[in-house]
Amino acid sequence: MDLFERLSPPPRILMGPGPITVYPRVLQAMGNQLIGQYDPVMTGYMNQTMALYREIFKTNNDATVLVDGTARAGIEAVLVSLIEPGDKVLVPVFGRFGHLLAEISERAGADVVTFEVEWGTVVTDAMLEKQIIRHKPKLLALVQGDTSTTMLQPLEGAGELCKKHGVLFYSDATASIVGNSFETDKWQLDAVSVGLQKCLGGPSGSAPVTLSEQAVERIRQRKHVEAGIRTDSHQAGQRSRIRSNYFDLGMILDYWGEERLNHHTEATSMLFAARECAQLNLQEGLDNVIDRHKRAGDALAAGLRALGLSLFGDLSHKMNNVVGVVIPSYVDGEAVRQAMLTQFNIEIGTSFGPLHGKIWRIGTMGYNARLDTVLLTLVALEALLVQSGGSIKQGAAYQAAVERYDVGE
Amino acid sequence: MDLFERLSPPPRILMGPGPITVYPRVLQAMGNQLIGQYDPVMTGYMNQTMALYREIFKTNNDATVLVDGTARAGIEAVLVSLIEPGDKVLVPVFGRFGHLLAEISERAGADVVTFEVEWGTVVTDAMLEKQIIRHKPKLLALVQGDTSTTMLQPLEGAGELCKKHGVLFYSDATASIVGNSFETDKWQLDAVSVGLQKCLGGPSGSAPVTLSEQAVERIRQRKHVEAGIRTDSHQAGQRSRIRSNYFDLGMILDYWGEERLNHHTEATSMLFAARECAQLNLQEGLDNVIDRHKRAGDALAAGLRALGLSLFGDLSHKMNNVVGVVIPSYVDGEAVRQAMLTQFNIEIGTSFGPLHGKIWRIGTMGYNARLDTVLLTLVALEALLVQSGGSIKQGAAYQAAVERYDVGE
Repeated sequence: MDLFERLSPPPRILMGPGPITVYPRVLQAMGNQLIGQYDPVMTGYMNQTMALYREIFKTNNDATVLVDGTARAGIEAVLVSLIEPGDKVLVPVFGRFGHLLAEISERAGADVVTFEVEWGTVVTDAMLEKQIIRHKPKLLALVQGDTSTTMLQPLEGAGELCKKHGVLFYSDATASIVGNSFETDKWQLDAVSVGLQKCLGGPSGSAPVTLSEQAVERIRQRKHVEAGIRTDSHQAGQRSRIRSNYFDLGMILDYWGEERLNHHTEATSMLFAARECAQLNLQEGLDNVIDRHKRAGDALAAGLRALGLSLFGDLSHKMNNVVGVVIPSYVDGEAVRQAMLTQFNIEIGTSFGPLHGKIWRIGTMGYNARLDTVLLTLVALEALLVQSGGSIKQGAAYQAAVERYDVGE
Repeated sequence: MDLFERLSPPPRILMGPGPITVYPRVLQAMGNQLIGQYDPVMTGYMNQTMALYREIFKTNNDATVLVDGTARAGIEAVLVSLIEPGDKVLVPVFGRFGHLLAEISERAGADVVTFEVEWGTVVTDAMLEKQIIRHKPKLLALVQGDTSTTMLQPLEGAGELCKKHGVLFYSDATASIVGNSFETDKWQLDAVSVGLQKCLGGPSGSAPVTLSEQAVERIRQRKHVEAGIRTDSHQAGQRSRIRSNYFDLGMILDYWGEERLNHHTEATSMLFAARECAQLNLQEGLDNVIDRHKRAGDALAAGLRALGLSLFGDLSHKMNNVVGVVIPSYVDGEAVRQAMLTQFNIEIGTSFGPLHGKIWRIGTMGYNARLDTVLLTLVALEALLVQSGGSIKQGAAYQAAVERYDVGE
């Protein structure tokens, strides 16, 4: 191992479930030199970033900030800040990330109730209401897009039900945001967290989060200012202190707010990336971005079918930006993935849990939600399937994808 | 507020207590396009990064990884992973960051014992042993360099004491590493965490951590694999589950280890930055880097004295890379800081807690541990002090700094 090897990553085309190839403008943004954390230019960038993510999330929530960590850090920040030990939390599970919300909630001390539906399907409003009535949770934690199954969970009905029954409503929209519709305020969400490394088109390492007034009020009741920077004007909240310092969203809000109370040192390069991601997507227009994801995803699906491959799950609920492909019996799934990577520089994904070894996952996200990347993936896959003895109509995948993409226009 | 303003940070010279101006090579590293998290090139970079930080930390610990978050994330990962609720933790406090270790330990459920010495001094071995004997803690958590006071806590004696009394020994060396000596194995440390944004010369957002075999064993007893990726071969540990998922160092080790068990999605751009920081420092040579910090720090101190300014604290225990300057009574400290920033593009720091408004903090760290940055800072400060009515011998600071810097050679 040469420790001093010069950094020179190969030019992969990342067509997996994420992370994906980053928009060049985002890489350029990260190349900018740092400024201090309380520099007025920096606090100006922070305020812009809050405003930009309000538009990404479609919300008027003041409390819209970045958590410095990966998407999972955003999830944990929301859950540990909202959950007090003993609180009942309802987590519907339709894939791996439901399990994750449940386990993070458990570690935060929640009394977690889960119910699972078959991987490849989503949860209905009727199922949800039954469970809400039965368990009377304080919080519903529901994934929007679960890349492990490619499913997109409808949230609108869940928001209605939560309001009706007085339940706080949180969604992790990391895998789905800007590739599919998302409406924080219209769908009556109290908390949402995402990451940059899917359709937003940035690197992993920053987690935008938004909180409703009600969620903020709950967090404020658990306020605690650190010794060492605490003054007489700081009063502690009435309720139990949040179990994490790093993920205490009250403290994070005070750092992003007018008091600019010191907490962590903002990860400036990641903030530059997050800000640029939001600008890029809003400048293209969210409707256009979602449409581009839909057209790329549909073209890919059409091409895969033309290769004679079956797609996984309830396609009426598939995310635009990722598809599960049943690995045909005549190939070694891992050997094909390896050849895609080493011979074509194209990365496609494997799977977790019950789907491990059964499906590939192919993503069309952010910068790579384009026709050319779809076509390259299809013709490369065609070559490898033919090589493995697949009987495939030559050129059909190309034609199907091009036709499907154009229909979208 | 123009949300679509093009990113264009002003060319600040960051001479505060951190974050500091980043090495240009590190910015260039972050401009590289992503690759997938299980790409063999990526896992190769991860293995290199582990090996590079073993050299930075001066350790043979296998368990040397990055936590994806700021320095504070590294602190919390170590503490929440090592502390079981009810464990007694001893935290000597000689500045703000001792309070921070205490508060993070409390939130992790520890029974925390603190003892405080006057800000501007450090803790003696005799004080430490008395407290260890009295309280019999499981863990000693001790900051090495506390930027709030500029003090550098000696750790060698503490390591001896911990071994003698069977106490786990953790230090946060974020502010001091590579600007001052640090010896993980020689000083018998069980856990160390740092950040990039001080002398390592990178941006905030990645926290290198190293753990001794004994610390790893303790963490392994609390092992837990997530539902959704758990298989029959995964056995749960005997002891209480770690209270955080994101900061569960057992899971983070499994992600960095041979099994490559999925946890978070590695923050690739920050890993590129962390890797480049380590390469840069090791290529210069750790002894040379520390010497450069010492010469720059000494030159700055000599120049400040020649400006008629008093330096804060017990200077025999000052970190090489930051100095506290008593704000002279004839100036408005904040007005001078503002003028340094707006007229000269030089940032110097303010203070926290009992020192707020009393001292400035000036850093010479990483890329900015150079004679030219020291001289620019001194002549700018001289101009502003003279403007405020200070009686200063013209050119004395320049001369004192140059002479002191050259002595170092």
